Amino acid sequence: MLSSNEYEEEFPVLKRKINGHRLVYLDNAATSLRPKQVMEAVTEYSLNHHANVHRSTHTLASEATEMFESSRQKIAKFINAQEEEVIFTKGTTESLNLLAYSLAISKIVKPNEEILITTMEHHSNFVPWQQIGKIFNIKIKYFPLRKGIFELDEYLKYINLKTKIISITGISNVTGQVIPINMIVEKARKIRKDIIIIVDGAQYVPHISVNVKSLDIDFLAFSGHKMLGPTGIGILYGKKEYLERMSPFLYGGEMIDKVSMEDTTFTILPYKFEAGTPNVEGSIGLAKAVDFLQQIGMNNIAQHDNELTQYALEKMKKLDFLEIYGPKNNLQSSIISFNVKGIHPHDVAHLLNEIAGVAIRSGHHCAQPMMTELGVRSTCRVSFYIYNQNEDIDILIEGLKKVWEWLK
Amino acid sequence: MLSSNEYEEEFPVLKRKINGHRLVYLDNAATSLRPKQVMEAVTEYSLNHHANVHRSTHTLASEATEMFESSRQKIAKFINAQEEEVIFTKGTTESLNLLAYSLAISKIVKPNEEILITTMEHHSNFVPWQQIGKIFNIKIKYFPLRKGIFELDEYLKYINLKTKIISITGISNVTGQVIPINMIVEKARKIRKDIIIIVDGAQYVPHISVNVKSLDIDFLAFSGHKMLGPTGIGILYGKKEYLERMSPFLYGGEMIDKVSMEDTTFTILPYKFEAGTPNVEGSIGLAKAVDFLQQIGMNNIAQHDNELTQYALEKMKKLDFLEIYGPKNNLQSSIISFNVKGIHPHDVAHLLNEIAGVAIRSGHHCAQPMMTELGVRSTCRVSFYIYNQNEDIDILIEGLKKVWEWLK
Repeated sequence: MLSSNEYEEEFPVLKRKINGHRLVYLDNAATSLRPKQVMEAVTEYSLNHHANVHRSTHTLASEATEMFESSRQKIAKFINAQEEEVIFTKGTTESLNLLAYSLAISKIVKPNEEILITTMEHHSNFVPWQQIGKIFNIKIKYFPLRKGIFELDEYLKYINLKTKIISITGISNVTGQVIPINMIVEKARKIRKDIIIIVDGAQYVPHISVNVKSLDIDFLAFSGHKMLGPTGIGILYGKKEYLERMSPFLYGGEMIDKVSMEDTTFTILPYKFEAGTPNVEGSIGLAKAVDFLQQIGMNNIAQHDNELTQYALEKMKKLDFLEIYGPKNNLQSSIISFNVKGIHPHDVAHLLNEIAGVAIRSGHHCAQPMMTELGVRSTCRVSFYIYNQNEDIDILIEGLKKVWEWLK
Repeated sequence: MLSSNEYEEEFPVLKRKINGHRLVYLDNAATSLRPKQVMEAVTEYSLNHHANVHRSTHTLASEATEMFESSRQKIAKFINAQEEEVIFTKGTTESLNLLAYSLAISKIVKPNEEILITTMEHHSNFVPWQQIGKIFNIKIKYFPLRKGIFELDEYLKYINLKTKIISITGISNVTGQVIPINMIVEKARKIRKDIIIIVDGAQYVPHISVNVKSLDIDFLAFSGHKMLGPTGIGILYGKKEYLERMSPFLYGGEMIDKVSMEDTTFTILPYKFEAGTPNVEGSIGLAKAVDFLQQIGMNNIAQHDNELTQYALEKMKKLDFLEIYGPKNNLQSSIISFNVKGIHPHDVAHLLNEIAGVAIRSGHHCAQPMMTELGVRSTCRVSFYIYNQNEDIDILIEGLKKVWEWLK
């Protein structure tokens, strides 16, 4: 890990004063801060090399294409995928919608089969299946968590020979529970060998090293902006054998082979799924973010995030005015949801920002079914990343004590 | 307009040498160059204000939300729309796919009605209608151009009481023909008052001032990256009355009202169509690009692009080894397609880059049906924008003469 000073150099916003206090940014599950390196790479491309990719033969176009495809190569290597299995999207939400539409249009799910999702999912891994399922008449089954805790044995009971697809998050964006994806894959494939396993990696990929081949998952969706990269860029990884069988999602330039009035044929992977001019500078920014993370080391990041979460949990458990919504004895990382008893989470978040410069999130975290499971309408949420330090937690704790004193 | 020196300051790539020659960038229909101002705005946001929008109450989140919504406001004003009618997408291609999917899912087109498109369209305004039409069993009618020229009277014969939707480009991305959208709207609404009129503005909005209210069109799609803005950001304008009736396209966070296991209700415009974390910095970059264009003045830009096109056409017509594919007596702006007789367009483009530093495009321009109309497989294409000067055309002409000498 870098030192606090080094992080302040790389992330200038960390030097900002918020209401006279040093910024303590604990809203990383919503989006991460942006390092200078990433913006330098984006700007260098944009001002000196920008052109449209793949389509022209002139010098700028060649440079842009080479930079774009190098970015794909780097990101593919980061998750141990083949390049043609890495599709650029605008974020996790588009990646998951692409999957839901394309799998439905391709009729991959037979009429007597179903898709299994859980009530802990972010809306982006819940609503597309529900709504696109309705449009195309596909049955969706919901695994209900008990009090917001994911229990593997209970979940496995919901998988049977009718289950064609499971889509599940790697880390709950509400409780920070780390889902044992490797065990799910192993056990699910024993129940039904050809089950399609989709992982929502929005909270997972920024914090934990992912190897799609050794995990043996079929699809992985994640976003650039939660892992130091730009907004507007994300990834869908898919196993080649599925991507080849699947219909395109968006139609337009770049993804076609031949177009006539009668019909259209489509081009090879990954371009079949990349209609239109892609977010070239977004891909370059994301590749630079991957560089940055790899220089620190994904294992170091996982350890740092775990230690910070444990440190915060220990301190927070001592505050008897807090209700913490956690996975209890299960692995939890980088995210903690809680409420200050009797006080609206928006008031807590607002006051922490005002009196301590601490940025946290309050709300339903785009996970209303999970809120229903927890029996609340909303929570406060703190979430950590590489530049956070124990001192940030100490400031949070002092802030929470003041909030309690003022509002109780 | 600015002077050449001022453009070189703003667009540093213009100072680059390509194979020892000053860069002459004539591939603007593929993507425009990027001014420093835009990247400064993007970087300033990214390093000092970035947070997720709409979802949190802390200072950074408020700043990010305010900057994002101000961008929407500026873009809305640019085309004279209401803010809630301006939806951020990743580009024209997504905007048009959103429309094709959503109009189909919403069953706006009755079983005996049809959608009219033309054979001059870019694939992004052709393949979505064709393919999504097949999925949802909607009839698509094609207006065939004659020798690549759009004739209004012929086109109007294709509109009748069965025509529910027409989708048409504002400027052909192959021939540069400027389509008389105002006359189409006027005449089409006389044939069928409630006809839905969609304009592909990818080539139009960067070059010609658009007022969606006075034009009285129902939808307009365009991209940031062809008008000095970033890649990965685009706009769908839609009349409120239609957007309100239409089903969402992408599902996820931000666009919902209530989610339960039974069903989901959706939130208000424009957010109903903006699932997931948006491209915040893209929106800010595009708003800055709009500022830049407005400072020059859209009418000045239109005049400049017209004059440059006429200057180029005059000089090119004198080269008897060129075949020019143009709208002949119709208005043509910013784009010229041609071939050097007997020589493959890729060879022409390659050689112009090598011997003269001139960047042009060769290929089918994502418009294969239009190539079929023209009776060719591909063409060379030059396209102009604000920073181009008569001198660039002179260099192009000298380059073409050399190409002809070398390869004839």
